[in-house]
Amino acid sequence: MSRWTLSPDQIPSAWFNVAPHLPTPPQPPLHPGTREPVGPDDLAPLFPMACIGQEVSAMPWIDIPGEVLDILRLWRPTPLVRATRLEQALGTPARIYFKDESVSPSGSHKTNTAVAQAFYNKQEGITRLSTETGAGQWGTALSFACSQFDLDLKVYMVRASYQQKPYRKIAMETWGAEVVPSPVDEPDHPGSLGSAISDAVRDCVGREDTHYSLGSVLNHVLLHQTVIGLEAKEQLELAGERLPDVVVASCGGGSNLGGIAFPFVPDETVRLLAVEPTSCPTLTQGRFDYDFGDVAGMTPLMPMYTLGHDFVPPSIHAGGLRYHGDSPLVSALVRDERMEAIAYPQGKVFEAAVQFARTEGKIPAPETAHAIRGAIDEALAAKETGEERVVLFNFSGHGFLDLAAYDDYTHGRLEQG
Amino acid sequence: MSRWTLSPDQIPSAWFNVAPHLPTPPQPPLHPGTREPVGPDDLAPLFPMACIGQEVSAMPWIDIPGEVLDILRLWRPTPLVRATRLEQALGTPARIYFKDESVSPSGSHKTNTAVAQAFYNKQEGITRLSTETGAGQWGTALSFACSQFDLDLKVYMVRASYQQKPYRKIAMETWGAEVVPSPVDEPDHPGSLGSAISDAVRDCVGREDTHYSLGSVLNHVLLHQTVIGLEAKEQLELAGERLPDVVVASCGGGSNLGGIAFPFVPDETVRLLAVEPTSCPTLTQGRFDYDFGDVAGMTPLMPMYTLGHDFVPPSIHAGGLRYHGDSPLVSALVRDERMEAIAYPQGKVFEAAVQFARTEGKIPAPETAHAIRGAIDEALAAKETGEERVVLFNFSGHGFLDLAAYDDYTHGRLEQG
Repeated sequence: MSRWTLSPDQIPSAWFNVAPHLPTPPQPPLHPGTREPVGPDDLAPLFPMACIGQEVSAMPWIDIPGEVLDILRLWRPTPLVRATRLEQALGTPARIYFKDESVSPSGSHKTNTAVAQAFYNKQEGITRLSTETGAGQWGTALSFACSQFDLDLKVYMVRASYQQKPYRKIAMETWGAEVVPSPVDEPDHPGSLGSAISDAVRDCVGREDTHYSLGSVLNHVLLHQTVIGLEAKEQLELAGERLPDVVVASCGGGSNLGGIAFPFVPDETVRLLAVEPTSCPTLTQGRFDYDFGDVAGMTPLMPMYTLGHDFVPPSIHAGGLRYHGDSPLVSALVRDERMEAIAYPQGKVFEAAVQFARTEGKIPAPETAHAIRGAIDEALAAKETGEERVVLFNFSGHGFLDLAAYDDYTHGRLEQG
Repeated sequence: MSRWTLSPDQIPSAWFNVAPHLPTPPQPPLHPGTREPVGPDDLAPLFPMACIGQEVSAMPWIDIPGEVLDILRLWRPTPLVRATRLEQALGTPARIYFKDESVSPSGSHKTNTAVAQAFYNKQEGITRLSTETGAGQWGTALSFACSQFDLDLKVYMVRASYQQKPYRKIAMETWGAEVVPSPVDEPDHPGSLGSAISDAVRDCVGREDTHYSLGSVLNHVLLHQTVIGLEAKEQLELAGERLPDVVVASCGGGSNLGGIAFPFVPDETVRLLAVEPTSCPTLTQGRFDYDFGDVAGMTPLMPMYTLGHDFVPPSIHAGGLRYHGDSPLVSALVRDERMEAIAYPQGKVFEAAVQFARTEGKIPAPETAHAIRGAIDEALAAKETGEERVVLFNFSGHGFLDLAAYDDYTHGRLEQG
């Protein structure tokens, strides 16, 4: 057998909080004016109190509300698949497993936190959300979640993606959201996640009916993604594996990486590997420092690896990885050497994506293709040494809405990036 | 619980042959020149002998080769889902279930027969296939299957779809296929399935390395799809249902309909409902007669409902339903009143699609949306009479590659069709 499913009643009932397991205690975010640690009141205009509480929680486990589980069960638990055809093509003794998050309604892992955030906002009386989206995975996920809870949604979409990926916009509109290109004030600017965050935060400030919703970076967002790793652990056991040797995921803001990797942090033998694009090399080339989450400097200062909040990455196809900063939790793990990071150019990434599509059948999102590149290279390293390495990676989303990128690759128009 | 999964080792091991269960024995296809029944030798230049044998088999069950099962297990068994959120929105006492075929690598049910046909061709020494595709679902499915068996593939894509759905073409190329618009000789013609079949058959004639592969209509194609209905039967039992009251599917050539409905033919209480577009109303407005499968008159004459082989349907978005004829097996069941048929205009179909997307989360392919319209109307009829009707429909594919259609619908540009 090479695919392990779990029944919908085997979905995890609590999220895994990595905070108590960090080698050094997490540093707090700072107020951009006073540089004092921000408190719940500073964040209350933006987020529901439940998420603010999760942001600073030291509890090892946090219960998932029943209303959230009911929706997650539409597609969760997701399958764990052993990529035997890819292994054969590589001629590797490694065993490669992937967690298939592409089966969610919007086609990526982002739906996991979208549902939770929509629920908590609805519960606290909010009727409208604003958000940004890079590649569009987050925007589609939140559009779906808002349709489930009858919330209005306005999405500020990074202009480069808005132009490259019209189907993402249409999907959001089909679920009922309003979508505009960002930055809203500079129609010739390709935009970035950082500037789209500024637009979305600005939309929400001073509107009592509206909260802001973020699809990555923050602690509570990564928390909601840990269902991925928790399910994977159980499924690996069903597959007869003890623990993986290495867990691989792409990293932009860090949410799909945190989701699959955090539950393995306490397992000291398990290596954790973040894969990012060389054109936006936050973890591999950035500095660890307090910086803003957005371009305009409206968010709290966060302790993270950063390329500087005014860094504008080139318009590579993996729009979801075009972020100057990174999750503080992921950053702390990299700084403390509990997690490794590697960067790849776009061409090498698409080469891996096409090899995967032709062996395992699924066409990955360009972001996801970074994880595949990393997993393939781990498997090839195992071949070199003759090791039976167990590689687990996160298939964070499918590429059906990103096919223009494949067109460029197939016809030799892809910039190396 | 509202979703029932089966483990990969619970996949059916044999296909269900509906032929022995038809109210009247099937009529043979006729040679276009002699009007005598065609024999295996007539078909051998086009199809592998294994498929030709299945075309006329009277065996009730036909074993699925292990090599085919190994690939089907990448995504099968597919989930059976109860659409409780849709039921609530409709306020119906009906219980609506759908079989989710969209989880296949290419996103539709077409992959089921694509894998089988690629396998049999490979086994008989063929190295190259030619085919046609309407909406592109079949072309993507066969591209994936050919990549699994290392076969070359040339796809003749109906020009209307080639222009409306560039992402489908890119997906096929990503799996390694060559794609050209059809009809190849008339660059201003929107094309149709019938004329694309002519192009693909012409490509294969006289080439010993090449066979032709068809994604619907023929008996062996529908046979390969019966895994859908077989799994659904088992899953309905897990859900605590005895049998559905009605099984609903969209119908173009008839393959997703046959796949889910044929295993229920022996269950006499189960109504079977084919849903087609009013713009191409083969079953509801056509005549039952011998006719060609293609526009140029190169195929055998088949006993089926037909609008005439020179009928060119309007360019509606459900390109997969733009076919002048229909499966002879489906046609016989409709003629003998074992199966019902209904037609809907495009606008009503998209209305149902968006209601489904906003309740159940998944965005359907335009073809699939016809089945949803039919299922919703069955559920509303049950509400009228207060019945506890059990409705099963085939969610034959997702709409991520068809989003331009939703853009037209959302912005009021959709022709009623």
